[in-house]
Amino acid sequence: MFIQTIDILGTIAFSISGVLVAMNKKMDAFGVFIIAFVTAVGGGTLRDLLIGATPVFWMTDMTFIIVISAAALFAVIFRNYIKHLRRSLFLFDTIGIGLYTVIGIEKGMAVDLHPIFCIILGTMSACFGGVIRDILCNEIPVIFRKEVYATACILGGLTYFLMLEFLEDRNYLFIIAGLVVIAVRLLAVIFKLTLPSLYKSEAELK
Amino acid sequence: MFIQTIDILGTIAFSISGVLVAMNKKMDAFGVFIIAFVTAVGGGTLRDLLIGATPVFWMTDMTFIIVISAAALFAVIFRNYIKHLRRSLFLFDTIGIGLYTVIGIEKGMAVDLHPIFCIILGTMSACFGGVIRDILCNEIPVIFRKEVYATACILGGLTYFLMLEFLEDRNYLFIIAGLVVIAVRLLAVIFKLTLPSLYKSEAELK
Amino acid sequence: MFIQTIDILGTIAFSISGVLVAMNKKMDAFGVFIIAFVTAVGGGTLRDLLIGATPVFWMTDMTFIIVISAAALFAVIFRNYIKHLRRSLFLFDTIGIGLYTVIGIEKGMAVDLHPIFCIILGTMSACFGGVIRDILCNEIPVIFRKEVYATACILGGLTYFLMLEFLEDRNYLFIIAGLVVIAVRLLAVIFKLTLPSLYKSEAELK
Repeated sequence: MFIQTIDILGTIAFSISGVLVAMNKKMDAFGVFIIAFVTAVGGGTLRDLLIGATPVFWMTDMTFIIVISAAALFAVIFRNYIKHLRRSLFLFDTIGIGLYTVIGIEKGMAVDLHPIFCIILGTMSACFGGVIRDILCNEIPVIFRKEVYATACILGGLTYFLMLEFLEDRNYLFIIAGLVVIAVRLLAVIFKLTLPSLYKSEAELK
Repeated sequence: MFIQTIDILGTIAFSISGVLVAMNKKMDAFGVFIIAFVTAVGGGTLRDLLIGATPVFWMTDMTFIIVISAAALFAVIFRNYIKHLRRSLFLFDTIGIGLYTVIGIEKGMAVDLHPIFCIILGTMSACFGGVIRDILCNEIPVIFRKEVYATACILGGLTYFLMLEFLEDRNYLFIIAGLVVIAVRLLAVIFKLTLPSLYKSEAELK
Repeated sequence: MFIQTIDILGTIAFSISGVLVAMNKKMDAFGVFIIAFVTAVGGGTLRDLLIGATPVFWMTDMTFIIVISAAALFAVIFRNYIKHLRRSLFLFDTIGIGLYTVIGIEKGMAVDLHPIFCIILGTMSACFGGVIRDILCNEIPVIFRKEVYATACILGGLTYFLMLEFLEDRNYLFIIAGLVVIAVRLLAVIFKLTLPSLYKSEAELK
């Protein structure tokens, strides 16, 4: 119940971020909906395909399609007011990636993958919806350039496996790892941390 | 036999549309063939992957690779005359999406998906070949901006499930739903209908 | 042992090519790593998805993630010196596609596909990592425009099946087909052969 609520908040935040990017690209109603949908479920879909968990998760549960449709409709109607919700959306989004990371990790463990690949699956679940959104909108994915999104997921995943030996209760593990993802992302945004870019800036070249 | 003929006409139309876009992008012979292939089978491939129907459909039947190769070769050789075939190609294409929609729906039903996801699968089968074509050609997919393609598929899908309770004979259902897709698309093109775009036009902003 | 060494050389070359393209696009450290990873395993991943071989190959073997991480780190640190390695990298890359082509063919045979689809799978394994790399970097895939990459793979694949009737020993077949791929690619580069582009050049249009 608690997890499901978080899942829905994350799905809402992801869908709305999709709507905003799609409207910027002057897409029609259908395009906007597809981008919202792909942003919300794209990462988990890729995860399910790679481990062979088909039909993929959103096809066997009506929750996702309903929540995404409602969120997309809301975002389209109130598009001029959404900027006032920026802070809430950022929070939902951050909580969402925390949750998605841990869900991805546990899906990997269920098919006996090595911890490294579980962490990769978790990170993918959380981040690749945004990657597919950016590709469909003909942009270089934003997380490849200046987000700590993925770093937060990876650190949360490492925490999960480091604590796996000490903690019997999977529920605590789930919550702690999720909180690490959320904390790292919040700190990174507050202190404006980014990963180093690997090219010389124009200033350096002079 | 009848269905197979339609399937081939649709595949031809999709392949040729791929060739035309690829040649516009100055691709070489290999690139043109790949784009033709992806346009024709991309939607169905995505559908098969999402429901776990592997090896995907075109790998177990020689028809597709032969028809696509022949159509691509034809389109390349007669590229200067194809514009005169515009009307026939549009008709083949429209018939093709009608058929692909219903095939996708029935594939979803075969794995016991909810009608909503069957309609999504049908629409995906019909439309996502073109989406992948546009991504490979570095364009924002055209159906996200100004086509009623997907709307026609969705309306056809709704028809299928609305009539499912009244009609015993699946063959009639198949034909009626396909005809709805075709009719909606034809009407939309004839009356120049498009979905509303969700951004303010320049005129409005003044 | 021998094959594994070649596989690692190929993976190194593919990863480094990914790093170079990603750094050109001003990606951060995470983006560069993802592009290196996708370039190296993307083709094989698509192959595994299409035939339903999940979890995909790189999830059940630590070799790939370790080699790719090391190669990407190396390429990032020595990015200013890599141009002196251009010749070695080209050679590794060429040997890599030879190997990947044959591995792909044999994976297709293992699930009883027709030779044509085995050749397609082999070519896909060798070439589509680069295609996905280019899409993620928002470029039209280079092999669609001016590389003989795919032609070499296809010719190697044809050789494999033409000789299948005469040669009992699969190991010889493996090596000969791989060498054909390598030879064709080397000759094409030495003699600057490319596939014909299917559009009129500006000169022709005058």
